[in-house]
Amino acid sequence: MQVRVFVTPRMGILDPQGRAVESSLQSLGFKNVSGVKVGKYILLEVQARTASEARDEAKKMCEALLANPVIEDYRFEVDGE
Amino acid sequence: MQVRVFVTPRMGILDPQGRAVESSLQSLGFKNVSGVKVGKYILLEVQARTASEARDEAKKMCEALLANPVIEDYRFEVDGE
Repeated sequence: MQVRVFVTPRMGILDPQGRAVESSLQSLGFKNVSGVKVGKYILLEVQARTASEARDEAKKMCEALLANPVIEDYRFEVDGE
Repeated sequence: MQVRVFVTPRMGILDPQGRAVESSLQSLGFKNVSGVKVGKYILLEVQARTASEARDEAKKMCEALLANPVIEDYRFEVDGE
């Protein structure tokens, strides 16, 4: 079952990569862009019998490794839900 | 208008970060996980009158800066579509 995880810097936390991308976009002439945030997009294949089992696994993986809950938020989607 | 960009390593391209995450997950006991790919998730606020205008801008930004088309694929979503 495919799981897609989205990890983003938490609101209020400094996001230097987002700032750098925003400033590069502005320099390239994209003046109408703002609020850039750069996070991670992680694709995983999880062997599970049900979507609910895959969700449980995904949550554990996010908390154990994929996201740092102090500075990042995460959400995920499981295929077929 | 919010634009969400998903950048992933292209099929067949070495993804060392994905390999590292997969091997860490296995070490942590998540034996049922495979095919890990790590990409970028970029959130942007684009000032545009229509979703179609925002899409055009997003496409240009992806090609100019956000993705490297030689080694990465991208897709994006525009709010309200």
